Amino acid sequence: MRCGLLFSAGKDSSLVALLLEDFYDVTLVTASFGVVDPEPAREAADALGFPHETVDLDPAVAHDAVSRMYDDGYPRNGIQQVHEHAVERVAAGAWADDIDAVADGTRRDDRVPTVDRPLAQSVEDRFGVDYLAPLSGVGRGAIDGMVAETLAVETGPSAEIPKADYEVELRSLLRAEHGAGAVDEVFPEHTQSRVRGRS
Amino acid sequence: MRCGLLFSAGKDSSLVALLLEDFYDVTLVTASFGVVDPEPAREAADALGFPHETVDLDPAVAHDAVSRMYDDGYPRNGIQQVHEHAVERVAAGAWADDIDAVADGTRRDDRVPTVDRPLAQSVEDRFGVDYLAPLSGVGRGAIDGMVAETLAVETGPSAEIPKADYEVELRSLLRAEHGAGAVDEVFPEHTQSRVRGRS
Repeated sequence: MRCGLLFSAGKDSSLVALLLEDFYDVTLVTASFGVVDPEPAREAADALGFPHETVDLDPAVAHDAVSRMYDDGYPRNGIQQVHEHAVERVAAGAWADDIDAVADGTRRDDRVPTVDRPLAQSVEDRFGVDYLAPLSGVGRGAIDGMVAETLAVETGPSAEIPKADYEVELRSLLRAEHGAGAVDEVFPEHTQSRVRGRS
Repeated sequence: MRCGLLFSAGKDSSLVALLLEDFYDVTLVTASFGVVDPEPAREAADALGFPHETVDLDPAVAHDAVSRMYDDGYPRNGIQQVHEHAVERVAAGAWADDIDAVADGTRRDDRVPTVDRPLAQSVEDRFGVDYLAPLSGVGRGAIDGMVAETLAVETGPSAEIPKADYEVELRSLLRAEHGAGAVDEVFPEHTQSRVRGRS
């Protein structure tokens, strides 16, 4: 069975890859607006030992999301919008034929992104694939423990950790359209993680 | 890290054991009111290669649940009540010292039992353990696929598959207190699965 896992090089999506690898042929898929180089994600995928692909996201979705985040003054709704689009792009098999499942690193304790049951069912019905979110039933403490057992991770402020996920791209677009101050205002500073391989 | 997984010998809890075994020392724990012999669950645990323990449930909880199911005419609320009690008993470490996590086979597409985020957080806070429900983000189709890849399962009508979970006990208590007709009325006939080992 083939599974495309939405992959950011962060610890959550990496942990999902390890959870699913005994059951699926997992490909790590980085969804990109083409704004930043996906190379950090490819390197992390190599280090973990999984094949890696990229799928293009629709620039119009980025534009809408950035406007929304700027108007809201916080990123939640914009990130949710982009995540749903990314899940649908991976589910649509834009990166491969004949996939059985799409997965992501959605966590129980995150406010966004979330994929609730009706949306999961809708993705499954529209694209004819299963949707898997094994960490949506796992809390932060357990995820940290499982990561510590299995992954080598570097952490630091968002701006200093080279990642290639859509959040990095949204920051970049927000900066380009509304200035650096808009990024500081919309995105609270928080620690990012990037996976360097298995421990 | 040590994890107690609520185990019925069914395919869902067995699949969770396989998902978690690379991250935790998993013990399969059967929660019992002492009404039926837990031997079928122990046999399934042996066949899967995991240690097995039993924990006693409070008979007063069974009594309340059976009354409730009889009054309701359907099992949902009674089963939910018993499941929450069973999770709490495993989380309380009634079967072992120093556990790190409690897990169960709760599925995304089941109406009961469910452990929503506030209840999960409450279990974690009250008992100082993590609560893990990796199948709560996975739909029926994917579970069936993952089971087919990894487990040997026998299926049949509920009454003919020897299991040792609390649902079997609740049927038995319902029959004892309200007669066989009450069981047929409250529990719709459905297919049960029992795991015989890895495939």
